[in-house]
Amino acid sequence: MEACKDKIRVGVLGATSYTGAELVRLLCFHSGASISYVSSQSYEGKALSSVFPALSGICDDTLLSPQEAAATDADCVFSCLPHAASAELLLPIIDRGIKVIDLSADFRLRDANVYKEWYCDDKHPAHAAPHLLEKAVFGLCEHYRDRIAGASIIANPGCYVTSVLLPLLPLYKGGVKIEWVIADSKSGVSGAGRGLKQNTHFPEANENFSAYSIGHKHRHTPEIEQELSAAAGRPVTITFSPHLLPVNRGILSTIYIRTDSSAAECADIVKKFYSGSDFVRIREPSDLPQISSVVHTNYCDIAFTGGGGGQPVIAVSALDNLVKGASGQALQNMNIMFGLKETAGLLR
Amino acid sequence: MEACKDKIRVGVLGATSYTGAELVRLLCFHSGASISYVSSQSYEGKALSSVFPALSGICDDTLLSPQEAAATDADCVFSCLPHAASAELLLPIIDRGIKVIDLSADFRLRDANVYKEWYCDDKHPAHAAPHLLEKAVFGLCEHYRDRIAGASIIANPGCYVTSVLLPLLPLYKGGVKIEWVIADSKSGVSGAGRGLKQNTHFPEANENFSAYSIGHKHRHTPEIEQELSAAAGRPVTITFSPHLLPVNRGILSTIYIRTDSSAAECADIVKKFYSGSDFVRIREPSDLPQISSVVHTNYCDIAFTGGGGGQPVIAVSALDNLVKGASGQALQNMNIMFGLKETAGLLR
Amino acid sequence: MEACKDKIRVGVLGATSYTGAELVRLLCFHSGASISYVSSQSYEGKALSSVFPALSGICDDTLLSPQEAAATDADCVFSCLPHAASAELLLPIIDRGIKVIDLSADFRLRDANVYKEWYCDDKHPAHAAPHLLEKAVFGLCEHYRDRIAGASIIANPGCYVTSVLLPLLPLYKGGVKIEWVIADSKSGVSGAGRGLKQNTHFPEANENFSAYSIGHKHRHTPEIEQELSAAAGRPVTITFSPHLLPVNRGILSTIYIRTDSSAAECADIVKKFYSGSDFVRIREPSDLPQISSVVHTNYCDIAFTGGGGGQPVIAVSALDNLVKGASGQALQNMNIMFGLKETAGLLR
Amino acid sequence: MEACKDKIRVGVLGATSYTGAELVRLLCFHSGASISYVSSQSYEGKALSSVFPALSGICDDTLLSPQEAAATDADCVFSCLPHAASAELLLPIIDRGIKVIDLSADFRLRDANVYKEWYCDDKHPAHAAPHLLEKAVFGLCEHYRDRIAGASIIANPGCYVTSVLLPLLPLYKGGVKIEWVIADSKSGVSGAGRGLKQNTHFPEANENFSAYSIGHKHRHTPEIEQELSAAAGRPVTITFSPHLLPVNRGILSTIYIRTDSSAAECADIVKKFYSGSDFVRIREPSDLPQISSVVHTNYCDIAFTGGGGGQPVIAVSALDNLVKGASGQALQNMNIMFGLKETAGLLR
Repeated sequence: MEACKDKIRVGVLGATSYTGAELVRLLCFHSGASISYVSSQSYEGKALSSVFPALSGICDDTLLSPQEAAATDADCVFSCLPHAASAELLLPIIDRGIKVIDLSADFRLRDANVYKEWYCDDKHPAHAAPHLLEKAVFGLCEHYRDRIAGASIIANPGCYVTSVLLPLLPLYKGGVKIEWVIADSKSGVSGAGRGLKQNTHFPEANENFSAYSIGHKHRHTPEIEQELSAAAGRPVTITFSPHLLPVNRGILSTIYIRTDSSAAECADIVKKFYSGSDFVRIREPSDLPQISSVVHTNYCDIAFTGGGGGQPVIAVSALDNLVKGASGQALQNMNIMFGLKETAGLLR
Repeated sequence: MEACKDKIRVGVLGATSYTGAELVRLLCFHSGASISYVSSQSYEGKALSSVFPALSGICDDTLLSPQEAAATDADCVFSCLPHAASAELLLPIIDRGIKVIDLSADFRLRDANVYKEWYCDDKHPAHAAPHLLEKAVFGLCEHYRDRIAGASIIANPGCYVTSVLLPLLPLYKGGVKIEWVIADSKSGVSGAGRGLKQNTHFPEANENFSAYSIGHKHRHTPEIEQELSAAAGRPVTITFSPHLLPVNRGILSTIYIRTDSSAAECADIVKKFYSGSDFVRIREPSDLPQISSVVHTNYCDIAFTGGGGGQPVIAVSALDNLVKGASGQALQNMNIMFGLKETAGLLR
Repeated sequence: MEACKDKIRVGVLGATSYTGAELVRLLCFHSGASISYVSSQSYEGKALSSVFPALSGICDDTLLSPQEAAATDADCVFSCLPHAASAELLLPIIDRGIKVIDLSADFRLRDANVYKEWYCDDKHPAHAAPHLLEKAVFGLCEHYRDRIAGASIIANPGCYVTSVLLPLLPLYKGGVKIEWVIADSKSGVSGAGRGLKQNTHFPEANENFSAYSIGHKHRHTPEIEQELSAAAGRPVTITFSPHLLPVNRGILSTIYIRTDSSAAECADIVKKFYSGSDFVRIREPSDLPQISSVVHTNYCDIAFTGGGGGQPVIAVSALDNLVKGASGQALQNMNIMFGLKETAGLLR
Repeated sequence: MEACKDKIRVGVLGATSYTGAELVRLLCFHSGASISYVSSQSYEGKALSSVFPALSGICDDTLLSPQEAAATDADCVFSCLPHAASAELLLPIIDRGIKVIDLSADFRLRDANVYKEWYCDDKHPAHAAPHLLEKAVFGLCEHYRDRIAGASIIANPGCYVTSVLLPLLPLYKGGVKIEWVIADSKSGVSGAGRGLKQNTHFPEANENFSAYSIGHKHRHTPEIEQELSAAAGRPVTITFSPHLLPVNRGILSTIYIRTDSSAAECADIVKKFYSGSDFVRIREPSDLPQISSVVHTNYCDIAFTGGGGGQPVIAVSALDNLVKGASGQALQNMNIMFGLKETAGLLR
């Protein structure tokens, strides 16, 4: 990809992760951006397309070391690194005044103590830059467009989080009275990353299905609760249950909402909220969201059903964890930050 | 398979369904049973193994017409037919005094009006034999062993139903106070049967995941509620949400239980209840049930987690929809009815 | 999608097939084309997006009947109909001077008798327009660009055929001496279409793998042999063995070539031949083509290995059956016919 | 499983591999065998069922270290260890006069130099016990029953090898004139073992298909050629191309045979050869072998088609790589060695 003076020059840290490769593909076909560099600790010096043969002829750039990357010029840097490593490497880049979009969890939680509780360990005992947490904007595009437009640090939301917040936030903001919420979420295996683990070894994940980290123990829970609480103006807790689904991509969340409002009322509120948002599609109860409708796109599909007769209202949402749940939304954030059309490079 | 005088002579109606084929395979390697006949409306006159090449050399019997089957001698007849057709064809067989195990829904609901509401239509406006509903025993082996032993008609429970009742029934029987229950269930595609539909066409089910019939609309709901209500001694309603999982076999149910009891207390009660039951395995919260642990077996794995701090207790259960959820449990019922060892032919 | 005066107005017959839906998606994001109509016999009057929810917000056009479609104006018409039906419906459109691209087999074979042998039956005893066979151009873009540019009827090649011809044709054209060829091809299930069949029912295709129509009996064989013979200047026959692969998309062909040339020589010839072709990527033997590298793209990846010591040279090729194997190549043909950049709308 | 005095006491080395777990499951339901010990280097001291939750209640034995295992009494020891490690650990066991069945490659090749060429490296520069190679019997049950019955060391054949040899060996033994053979084989991912690799990480193997080690470079080639040459009485070389198939279990080989004999003649010869063999099923060309017909069984299905008009005869074979391709055949070998019924414990 050749650079062009008036294009946004973009750097991608951690380009050999799944979210990194997806982001690079999107950027290569984005008319307003050009890739300044791609970097990787493990594959430094190799061509990105030697790691992902699918990118041959699309992005054959050589992978810089993180150190080289940090010293290279760019208008916008995306980090697809793991948490802790991400904040650490982004700090000098932020200091140079470069806008950053962090796909890791490092800037999502506004409270450094909550961050510590869920993400720190002996090796990384504390957040690398707690003073920046206030400055970071939570990059859920449809809810924070104005703040994103003026931001210099974007905390790109988690994939599960996006699938749970998009249907719920308008209800809390719209004053719907909600007693409790249970989000039963199912994610494709790419959500677990490219690192090798026994439970994502093909013969163990294929033809299998399992729950994990259930019972208020998954790291995405505080992120969901932070945003719901802010919208509700009071502390909100939820029950969040992730499951591992034997597909490559996609998250479907089945969300049980105890409320006196009807499913139709919820759908109305949410539909109105997203009326100007291209990437949220509200569906009828007779046409529930499904993963195959959204994979490889930046859409999040949402429907409401159930309710009445003492039954909870049920929201169903679906998105592609690597696109609207990660790299697509990150690019959407870049579009907003740089004043481009929000959908640029995201329709396909 | 050669018949033997002192073996139970078994007839299988609807042998070309998935549950039929699974049942035949199990019967062929059951030392106490011999197949008297297999039948099929659509494939009459053909060898069963021409429909299921996997059964070549195992059961090459010619498929009788349902009429021929009804006139053939047997000690026990299994029906793997669809509802309505099943009751109709079983009636004369029951009249001849032959014990029957019905895998369809026809004898599961004790109230003919409830049956009518969920299963009847213009073509089948009413239950074919409402007078027999009282006589039929609900074949959830671990809960009704004594009644099954003396029964002549067994209503084999639905697959989803078994996965939801096995963890819940001991709690209701044990007096645990439960405010509400939400069962979020995920089933492999064989649960939808062998008939062709667009949503089970490979390119549409594969790499997909979807909810269906949610919001109190699935036929298995009244069956679950009937049994829970009987155990509780009061009307119990639940929220039941089925999903289509892109695997061949297996059901995993994530069941949210609002109760003041802890997960450990629930696990204790359930563990005690099933202490003499070979096919229910209680697992630790650190070792949650998963589909791959139970496929091709008659096990149902159960664990309890969550609870505390206002969170619901979460039960996770897993079973093979074609074995413990259908044909395996049917065979288990036969073993009990005929005084054989309950595990006969079911360990593999 | 709004039409625009200087855009190519495109009609799509058979838009509810898999190739139809893929084509519509590609067209919607093609800056030089606008959809004039979509049609479907079975779903007439419905929105295309009600059949393919993934297309919601992308193409919500109402499906015309084939008759309405035939009477509607367009600059270019694609037919995604089955053979026989396709030629029949295209005839009046061709007569009106509209350029057509036929994705069916109807215009691929130049000899009406060969067509009859492989495609006709009692219902369709002969080709509908044998006089047009000579006029039709075989739309294998990389080999017939000049003729395509001036064509009014394009016979878009079969998916298997493209995967076999792209590696082989340059060898025959380049004078490589080839004694025999065996193509062992494996295709994802979408290649079998959207119609329901027992062998593509999820529980029967999933976790399965099978050969079909092997031993010179598959309809794609004469199409392959016609083109190889033309390139060789003598009659060429091959052994072609298709297999059903449990993935949604993609074809991988392993092609055994008995020749005295080495794998490296073959690779050189083929690499030179495709040096100006964006969509053919020649890979090293250490980096063999695989399906995951090409799905959702218009690329065909090719490598050569083996040979020496009496061993055949082995070509491996991979493409997406719905893109380079069908709708992508069809669009590439349109680009060439209408003087657009060959890659327009095909990079993603 | 309780031990019983007159049962064969069996030890399993490498019990935490996929072949080990499959073997243990089979042994647990084998009426003539009892497990004396299971061992594992990596999981020493843990329960086997903690590694494979599916085995809970079936085999909860504690895993011995390889050293403890070697010192424990047994009548028959199976090794599911990797090559090199296997021979090394089996040596002292063989010295104690215990019969061994080795599922690794260590005793398959009769020529220590050929073994060295394909299996040795700096760490293991030579075979640990070349003097025993002559003593080992190649455990392809249907071909070497007599020798197996008297053997003390069995080299259990490779999975690919079994799928290629079973259709071919009777032809060579029967004097069919064969000019050349190409075996295009496709294996499920469990064939690559339980060790983690990038290409068997779920998101990379799923929805993918690829060739590997093609062009006479796969380790199973010399094993196939050794047995074919022995049968032919002259050196035979073949072309063998393995592929990675996105299913858990199963191998399907499409084998191209250049011969003047017809497919029907080949089928006849092979059918006669296996007439007394329960686990080989010869199928009609209209009913080709497929993976779903053989998974979880010890069957190998074979059919012949093609031929005539200059076309090669095509053999298609299918088996389960973990059963007939490994642990099932190993158990079949044990049955033969100890004078049990050959099918004992293998029908399910």
